[in-house]
Amino acid sequence: MDCIFCKIISGEIPSAKVFEDENVLAFLDVNPDSKGHTLVIPKQHAENIFDISKESLENVIVAAKHIAKNLKDVLHTDGINLMQSNGPAANQVVMHYHLHIIPRYENDGLKIAHKQEGAIKPPFEELQALAKEINP
Amino acid sequence: MDCIFCKIISGEIPSAKVFEDENVLAFLDVNPDSKGHTLVIPKQHAENIFDISKESLENVIVAAKHIAKNLKDVLHTDGINLMQSNGPAANQVVMHYHLHIIPRYENDGLKIAHKQEGAIKPPFEELQALAKEINP
Repeated sequence: MDCIFCKIISGEIPSAKVFEDENVLAFLDVNPDSKGHTLVIPKQHAENIFDISKESLENVIVAAKHIAKNLKDVLHTDGINLMQSNGPAANQVVMHYHLHIIPRYENDGLKIAHKQEGAIKPPFEELQALAKEINP
Repeated sequence: MDCIFCKIISGEIPSAKVFEDENVLAFLDVNPDSKGHTLVIPKQHAENIFDISKESLENVIVAAKHIAKNLKDVLHTDGINLMQSNGPAANQVVMHYHLHIIPRYENDGLKIAHKQEGAIKPPFEELQALAKEINP
């Protein structure tokens, strides 16, 4: 067992916890993008969205809703971004499913959930053809 | 009712659908960050993570897992980012809860889920104090 998040769950590595129940743990990111940046993880190890169980997935998002409300109330956040990465190509670094809760504050200057540079609006017919390809 | 996503659900505005069931609709973003960029929305209108029902929240994330697998299989994505924004300060533009599924491809150059510039690693004691403040 060489998973850093499993070691946080077991208590082998300390963390600044903001939520814990039977199935889920949430703690502050040690490299925060903003004040209150939290990671929510399932206690049952799963690497990503492809192999996590339906139950863990539901437990994590419901816990995130609760924590987001707490962050809003206590830290007076102006907004909240949720983010979750699957695979190194998506910038996943720790291979244990984790959902980022990133508090946002007016004019914080963070480039999260902004439109990517050079994005091109494709013709609708192209999108329709692609949708058919994805879901025949 | 002046919600553009509710109009997409009702069919008043066309969309390139990749998934639909009783509770959830998913369609391709007309301004995609990458090929296959999908939005997953609950059919029951809710603005954000604070007012969406537990059931809708669960339905959306479980549908997203299914769609992510489809995108991976059909488009041969190298990674997947999930992103969800709450409030204008978090770059939410349409005020109907929506979860972005953003396919990632090796060397696509997208700045999604990368570390923010100027992020500072706070002392652990500071994080512990903050965690206590958030969850006394």
